Order: sequence, then C-alpha cells, then structure tokens
Amino acid sequence: MRTQVAIIGAGPSGLLLGALLAKAGVDAVILEAKTPDYVLGRIRAGVLEQVCVDLLDEVGVGARMHREGLVHGGFELAFGGSRHRIDMKTLTGGKQVMVYGQTEVTRDLMDDRAAKGLTTIYEAANVSLHDFDGGKPRVRYQKDGATHEIECDFIAGCDGFHGVSRASVPAGAIQTFERVYPFGWLGILADTPPVSHELIYVNHERGFALCSMRSKTRSRHYVQCSLDDKVENWSDDAFWDELRRRLDPEAAETLVTGPSIEKSIAPLRSFVAEPMRFGRLFLAGDAAHIVPPTGAKGLNLAATDVSYLGSAIAEYYRDKSSAGIDTYSQRCLRRIWRAERFSWWFTSLMHKFPETGAFGQKMQAAELDYLVSSTAASTAMAENYVGLPL
Amino acid sequence: MRTQVAIIGAGPSGLLLGALLAKAGVDAVILEAKTPDYVLGRIRAGVLEQVCVDLLDEVGVGARMHREGLVHGGFELAFGGSRHRIDMKTLTGGKQVMVYGQTEVTRDLMDDRAAKGLTTIYEAANVSLHDFDGGKPRVRYQKDGATHEIECDFIAGCDGFHGVSRASVPAGAIQTFERVYPFGWLGILADTPPVSHELIYVNHERGFALCSMRSKTRSRHYVQCSLDDKVENWSDDAFWDELRRRLDPEAAETLVTGPSIEKSIAPLRSFVAEPMRFGRLFLAGDAAHIVPPTGAKGLNLAATDVSYLGSAIAEYYRDKSSAGIDTYSQRCLRRIWRAERFSWWFTSLMHKFPETGAFGQKMQAAELDYLVSSTAASTAMAENYVGLPL
Repeated sequence: MRTQVAIIGAGPSGLLLGALLAKAGVDAVILEAKTPDYVLGRIRAGVLEQVCVDLLDEVGVGARMHREGLVHGGFELAFGGSRHRIDMKTLTGGKQVMVYGQTEVTRDLMDDRAAKGLTTIYEAANVSLHDFDGGKPRVRYQKDGATHEIECDFIAGCDGFHGVSRASVPAGAIQTFERVYPFGWLGILADTPPVSHELIYVNHERGFALCSMRSKTRSRHYVQCSLDDKVENWSDDAFWDELRRRLDPEAAETLVTGPSIEKSIAPLRSFVAEPMRFGRLFLAGDAAHIVPPTGAKGLNLAATDVSYLGSAIAEYYRDKSSAGIDTYSQRCLRRIWRAERFSWWFTSLMHKFPETGAFGQKMQAAELDYLVSSTAASTAMAENYVGLPL
Repeated sequence: MRTQVAIIGAGPSGLLLGALLAKAGVDAVILEAKTPDYVLGRIRAGVLEQVCVDLLDEVGVGARMHREGLVHGGFELAFGGSRHRIDMKTLTGGKQVMVYGQTEVTRDLMDDRAAKGLTTIYEAANVSLHDFDGGKPRVRYQKDGATHEIECDFIAGCDGFHGVSRASVPAGAIQTFERVYPFGWLGILADTPPVSHELIYVNHERGFALCSMRSKTRSRHYVQCSLDDKVENWSDDAFWDELRRRLDPEAAETLVTGPSIEKSIAPLRSFVAEPMRFGRLFLAGDAAHIVPPTGAKGLNLAATDVSYLGSAIAEYYRDKSSAGIDTYSQRCLRRIWRAERFSWWFTSLMHKFPETGAFGQKMQAAELDYLVSSTAASTAMAENYVGLPL
C-alpha cells in the first residue's frame, strides 16, 4: 500500500490529524493496534481550550460538541474550608473552555472518518517503522495472519507514551525530561449530578480532590491516592466518603453519590522528548510529552501539535516548502514547555507531597491566598487555564 | 530603671520602633549587645519598598535617603544570554523602590536618636527577659561589671535570628517553619560603578548572580556559591571572573572591576516563628522570620512589623485599647507569609539547585520565558517586588 502520510494511532491526535490532512487534500492511513471499542473505552480528560474547539469546528465535527458540551467561564479553588472562583472569562477578556469528554471527541472524529470512507486499519499488530531517516519511509504491520507494508512520505507518531513511534528513534537522537509524582489520582465516573456547575479543585490536608463532570447528569471525581493503592481497595462508598471529607461544608452537603460506571487509578507524570522530528517521522501528543492531568492540558497540547503538523505537511505538498516541517519541533516545544510549566505548577500547588514539610505546606497556603487575592496572579492562572496563544 | 517599652536590639527594626514610639510619646529604652560601629559594620540589604520609605519619612529621618538614595522603576532578569526588563513602575501603576543601604538607614536612625537624647544602651551583656507572661516584665543585663534591671510594660524583641528574645519563649508556645537552601551568596562591595543603573538578577547554568549597587559609584555584587565554600578561597580576581562568566555579553563588557571593600558568604534561609506575641513580649523582624535575600524583603518586613507594633503600643496607651496588640501577630503574619512565598519562589526560580535535574532546569527556563512574555505574570512579580499593600 502507498499513502502520503502514515499515522500511527487512532486516538484523538491521530484522528484529528487525519481529519486536518483530509481537509487539505493529503492522503493518509491510520494504523491502530486496538479495536475502536477499546479506544473509546479509555476515559481521559474532558476540558477543551478554545483552540481545540476551533480545530474541531475547522474539520467539521463540532456540531455535537456545541450541542452537548458545557461552556465554562470559570472554575473554583477550594482550600482552608472555603471556595474561591477564578472568573477566567472576565480575567482573559472573554475566553472560556468547553467541557466535553475526550471519548466524545474521539467518537465524533471516528464517525466522521468512517462517513468519509477514510482508511483506518484497526488491530494492526507489531507495527514497525522503517527508513524514516531517508526519503522513503515504510511502516510494516501484521493483520489477519499476514504482514503488510505501507510506503509513505511521512510518518506521524500519534501512538501515545507507550507507543512504537518514540521507541523507534535511536536513543542518541532524543533527549527526555521527566518527573514522576509520588501519588496517583483515583477517579470515578458516575451518573450523578455534578457538585457544582463548574469544576472545583481542592487543596486539602488529606490530599487533592477534583469535582468535575462530563454532562449535567454525569459526574467525574478524583481524589489523590497513594501510588501503591489499588482500585480493589476502594468501594464506591469508600470513595464518596473520602471525597466528602476533602470538600468544604457546602460542597459536601451538595454531593450526590451513586454507583460508579468506571473507577481507575492513574499515575501523574511530566515528560517531554526533544526534538519531535526525526527525518520524516514526527511525534505528536502523548508520544512526545505527558503532563499531569491537573489543568487538563494533555488533549489540548496534542490538538495543537497536530494542528502545527497538519499545516506543515499541507504546506509541503501545496507550496513545495519544508519551512513548516523544519520548524515543527521548535513551534510545538515552546507551547509544550509552557503547558508543562503550568501543569507542574498547578500540580505542585494543589497536592500533598510526602516530602513537603510544614514549610512547604505554608508555601502552598500562602500561594493560594495570594492567587485569589491578586488580580495579576488570578489573571496569570486564568490565561494558562484557557490556553496560552498559539 | 523603668520605661514603658524595652526594645532589645539596636538594628534597623529596634531603632525604627524606637523612633515610632518616641513620635507617639511612648517612652522606650533600647538595649544592644554590640557597639554602634559593630552594628553599622554589618552589610545587609539595600532595596526599600515604598512603605519602608514612607515610615522613615514619617519619623523624620528620610532627608539623606531622598538625597543620596537611587529610585528604581524596574529591574532586569537575565537568562539564556539576554536581559529582560521588568518595568515595575508601569506594571504597578507608579510604584517604585529606593536603593539605599541598610547601613545608611541604621546610621540615620542612630543619629536621630542621639540628637533627640533618647536612651540606647550599647554593649549590654547577658540580656535576659523575665515575667513577660505576667503584667510586670523585666529585662536584666550586665554592663561595666554591674547587673542592671529595667522594669517595663512591654518588651519588643528586635534582636535578630540569633537573639535572646525568641530564645526566651518556652518551646511549647512557639511553632517554627524553616527551609535551609543548599547554597550561599558570596558578596562583595567595591567602589566601582554598577553594571547597569538598575539591578540585574541572573539565572545561569553556573548559578545565580546579582549585580546591585549602593550608589552610582559603589557596587554590590553576588554569586551563588557552595555552602562549604570559604571567603578565603576567593581572591577579588576570582570573584570578578566568576561574575563575568554568569553575565550576558553586554553586561560582561560593561563590568568594571576593582578591589573589594567587603567580601562575605551568607547562607540562605526561609524561617517563620508563629505566633509573634507571647504575653507582653513581641517579636519583630529577623527575630521572628528570615527570608532568603532574593527580592530584598528582609528589611522591608521588619519595617512593617515595627510599624504595626508601634501603632499597637501607641493605641494601648492613647486609647486604653489592646485591640492592636491582640491582632499584632495575625496582621504581621499574613504579610510575612506572602513575602516568604515571594522570596522562596524567586529564590527557587533563579538558583541552581543540586537536586534539580534536567526537568527542573527546564521548568525554570519555561517560567522565566513565561514571566517576561505575559503581562499578568510580569505584573504579579512586580507587585510583589515593590511590596504588597499593608
């Protein structure tokens, strides 16, 4: 098989890149190791920046998001027993975020791709990347007992942190930066109304908590847990009790509990691989970088990566110019490091760290106090939350 | 001897409190373990916030400061080989700082006190505090071979981190918070022109540096050094060479070197003792809290402590009200924790930490990049630098 761009991974990054390339008239094939249902079963982030919303509109898949998504103009920080709203819409001159689950974004992009008859090969096993440092890259995979090969001009590695794409780069060509946090997030999804119409981020002496939602009838909550904790240790009741303990009295009163639909523990990691281009292979999204979920930057960064990459590849074919391709890594990384900084800072501010002594806890308290009492500090936080300019 | 307030320590906190009390018609005696020359020989900070300038004007000792001090409307952050100015005057709606050495502040206050015939007892040895948890505190000391006792209504502990005042409080009555940083500042004073007319704070892979000044002809420079380093290891030439290596090319070119007048190594520490009142004993300034020198908050915090304390004591005698006394600790601590946060943050941002890996260095770079490119972030920094409102 021959295509212009072989996209590895049918998560939101790969699917959005596929949609952007299709719109630009560039031929692409997506290879995915898992089934569509498996991909849709991964519960991930749910807060989209305006740039991400705009991209989904640009490729024509925004209708359901605008119908079902929740537009938020602010969020709350809870500490010391009370809540403080960060009015990001006012502070940023009108910018807002869209609460719409990553699963829904993925479904909309999948449905659109299927409707347009674009090729996605699911259950492609043992994918391997070849000759991307030369002019003729190839991707090999196995399916239905046979080995297949795709010849292409470019390979886009959209296959996540554990994918084959970054692993295919020679170790000497890549530099990685990493911080693993000493705790995890225990999250549950439940068909209960959200605690508030906006998100509540909680700094509590027992640890971080987050009251979030997917819709007006489906809530998504998290509590900071130990890294060696197990989902099996947490009954639904135990989760709700722990969450309630970390909430201010009014939120605790409002909390409606119910059976969980999904329950899982996720570790928190900051990670960046530099550069993001190796000859004709480009990394995008989680394949190149991970942020801790505090502040919900992961999906948004992936979306801007593939936006830059889609433009760069379209420009290559349309204008015979490699300018976009040559600056891809640099353009992405400036925005990525800024989001890494925000996610690291917000994570550091809100969580209980085993190594933080009494002085560190006082620094968190002083920073939260300053944050909600200074317009400049609130604005800095808000402009990062809604997303820094492209 | 009998007085209304016994002030322990004739550094800038004790002297300023003495001046404030004298102005309010409250009788006070200052006890100081050292000689005036020893006190004046301590080279310390030199950047005064507007609130500190206002206090010195209020007690009538501001004339020389306004004549000789340098008003700064900004400062520079240097990193990645270039400098970025933080225009604090514009960002804060007109606020500025005054560069005027702590030694000069001390001298002005001492001269004023002497001119007014107010009592300062220097070389008071073995000072001890008694009965401050009852109604009749006493201070005992030895001088010229004899033991003396002062009866008073209140004791103000303005005798610094190592002084007797905090040490006199029963351990169970006080809670302390501390962070000791894993490096020191090697500083020199020299009669050479400053590198720039404003301060330059440098983040460099070899470590932090600061180009500061005391006047247009006297410079004060620092380089981050190891905690186990010794002044004897550093010739003047070695210092200048190391400083030059950490500067951007233009600053390195401008640097004028010369023989040092003073050279010393200071450790960096964050420290807070809570509360700051124990019956009729009040702690103020370094006796209660220490900030690392990055951002020059130490003297400014001391000045606001004694401003609150002076008002509280004046109110006690004038209005027979203990409202100010009762809220002294709480009022001070809110401002102190904010300055502790800023000093800790600015120190963390600018120094090379032995334990910080590649990810931590990238976080510093990303934060500096964000800081100078976001008006909100620059404003937050500027409003802390000029001093948050009382």
